[in-house]
Amino acid sequence: MRTQVAIVGAGPAGLLLSHLLHLNGIESVVLEVRSRDEIEATIRAGVLEQGSMDILNDAGVGERMRKEGALHHGIELAFAGKRHRIDLTELTGKAITVYPQHEVIIDLVAARLAAGGQLLFNASHVALDGLEGIGTERPSVSFVHGGQAQRLEADFVIGCDGFHGVSRPMIPAGVRQDFQRTYPFGWFGILVESEPSSDELIYAQHERGFALVSTRSPTVQRLYFQCDPHDHVDNWSDDRIWSELHARVEINDGWKVKEGRIFQKNIIGMRSFVCAPMRSGRLFLAGDAAHIVPPTGAKGMNLAISDVHLLSRALDAFYKRGAEDLLDGYSDAALKRVWRAEYFSWWMTRLLHTFADASPFERQVQLAELENVASSRAMQTALAENYVGAF
Amino acid sequence: MRTQVAIVGAGPAGLLLSHLLHLNGIESVVLEVRSRDEIEATIRAGVLEQGSMDILNDAGVGERMRKEGALHHGIELAFAGKRHRIDLTELTGKAITVYPQHEVIIDLVAARLAAGGQLLFNASHVALDGLEGIGTERPSVSFVHGGQAQRLEADFVIGCDGFHGVSRPMIPAGVRQDFQRTYPFGWFGILVESEPSSDELIYAQHERGFALVSTRSPTVQRLYFQCDPHDHVDNWSDDRIWSELHARVEINDGWKVKEGRIFQKNIIGMRSFVCAPMRSGRLFLAGDAAHIVPPTGAKGMNLAISDVHLLSRALDAFYKRGAEDLLDGYSDAALKRVWRAEYFSWWMTRLLHTFADASPFERQVQLAELENVASSRAMQTALAENYVGAF
Repeated sequence: MRTQVAIVGAGPAGLLLSHLLHLNGIESVVLEVRSRDEIEATIRAGVLEQGSMDILNDAGVGERMRKEGALHHGIELAFAGKRHRIDLTELTGKAITVYPQHEVIIDLVAARLAAGGQLLFNASHVALDGLEGIGTERPSVSFVHGGQAQRLEADFVIGCDGFHGVSRPMIPAGVRQDFQRTYPFGWFGILVESEPSSDELIYAQHERGFALVSTRSPTVQRLYFQCDPHDHVDNWSDDRIWSELHARVEINDGWKVKEGRIFQKNIIGMRSFVCAPMRSGRLFLAGDAAHIVPPTGAKGMNLAISDVHLLSRALDAFYKRGAEDLLDGYSDAALKRVWRAEYFSWWMTRLLHTFADASPFERQVQLAELENVASSRAMQTALAENYVGAF
Repeated sequence: MRTQVAIVGAGPAGLLLSHLLHLNGIESVVLEVRSRDEIEATIRAGVLEQGSMDILNDAGVGERMRKEGALHHGIELAFAGKRHRIDLTELTGKAITVYPQHEVIIDLVAARLAAGGQLLFNASHVALDGLEGIGTERPSVSFVHGGQAQRLEADFVIGCDGFHGVSRPMIPAGVRQDFQRTYPFGWFGILVESEPSSDELIYAQHERGFALVSTRSPTVQRLYFQCDPHDHVDNWSDDRIWSELHARVEINDGWKVKEGRIFQKNIIGMRSFVCAPMRSGRLFLAGDAAHIVPPTGAKGMNLAISDVHLLSRALDAFYKRGAEDLLDGYSDAALKRVWRAEYFSWWMTRLLHTFADASPFERQVQLAELENVASSRAMQTALAENYVGAF
């Protein structure tokens, strides 16, 4: 097989890139190790910045997002027995849409298939080869599909295969630098059948630990609370979970977290990670393959979208004009945005979580920083700019 | 001896409190272990917020400050080979005055003596007694002065005797909580005979460590650079000092740090410290006796001034109306401002210094946070608000 751009991974990054390339008349093949059912059915989080919405809308895949996504104009911070609304739209002129990642995937798969795009699901044993030196080698991807060993030759290989994918390790160790931080806590997440507890997301800082009231749809809610990353869901009865959430999020003003049937429990580790550069020869990385943010800043899917937006322009310039400057500048341009998001995600995580090893001084400083946010329109604007991606 | 308010320590806090009380017709005596010459001749740093200037002006001791102090409308941040001006006045409507602490002391001593105030210098063996329970006990301070053991009886004792003073330990251990952080670096400070290198203070972040270009007067400059707190000034020749400062502060745009005769070298430890509460019975603490900030936020003298401003009002209410509510609220009111300043001083310190144990991820996040400040008017406003004390 032969194509112009081989894309490894059918997450939001890989699918959107394939679609953006298609819109520019560039051919691609997407290889995905999982089945279509699996990627469409795994319920994931999702907050889209205005810029991400714009890219999806411009690409013609925003119709259901506009209809079913929940446009949010603010978030709430809860701490020290008070709640403070950050009016994102008033402060920045922009908003965010809560629209889960698996819904974006469903929309993109549908759009790719409708346009005759080549998506190869259940592609196993994926391996990359021939990636040294742009212009001097022809990269290829070998894989097994439908019981047969196959080889896909391409001008470029784009690794959109997530943190545990095969692409990043292909950037030679001598070239690549990995930056990372693993946080000493996780998020215990539940999916609940109920109406939303709140019109907007509530980020709660509490001495018992962070909690987040979030939503998936008018009938399915997503709630999280900070936990030991090595804990097990079996240790948490529904009663214990509700009691923890009530304790962390409510502030004695009568408002309560709405209970409902809990139909999923899981524990998510919290990590910051950046691989630099995001390119080696004819291999480019995008999305989680290159960087991970803790979910506190709601940046993950937005970085994937902004990465492939940059990359689609760079590939377009290459195929239309033979220009390599945007390809050469991709890593630096993407990393500039990535580091801003990494900083913000780290800052939100530090601001809102309880750190077991924090000194009494550090705990008080954390509260003083929260008070600074709550009392300063400038600090709220700075937070809002980063949250909506106005940078 | 007997007075209404016994004040231990003739720093800016003690002297200003004595003067503010005098303006309200309240009698005080200030005890100081050092000589007048010593407190007036020790060259110290000093940045005054607008609010501190207002208090000094309102108290009639601002004349020389207005004339000789340098009004600054901005500061500069230098990092990654660029300099970024933070326009304090444009962002907040306020300014700061660089006017050293020893000059404030000289003005206050002169004002107290002109008004017949009782300042007892060279008072040794100061000890506090009878401090349990407001309204039930008469506190007193014993000391040796002019070779004679003496006792000063008072309604209140105010500890303005700094971090190493005798007052704070008199708050019982069971009542008092100490919050602290010691930073793993110090500041190497030099005093130089030269013109100012810059019209405004320059805060430089550099991989070799923080540096600060500051000024004392049109002919005396104060420069600092981050160092090992256990280093010795003897290890630093003038040449080595200049070479370090040039490397950290200059950015290849032709501007250079002005050299001159170095006539003082010292190393300052960096500490954050808060004692809470700031009051026990008839003993009240103010200034460095209760809290220390690292000098990066330029908050030290301002906190001393705001503490005694609060305290003078509370004592006035007590003597004029017998009201104890402001006295009872003093510690909480002072600590609210103290924690904001502690947060800001910690934040500036963390943002601008090199931490030997920082991971590569943390170093990149620090640069990303600096870029956030440099690129966001909102973040600059938040910094400026805290710097000028607009909170």
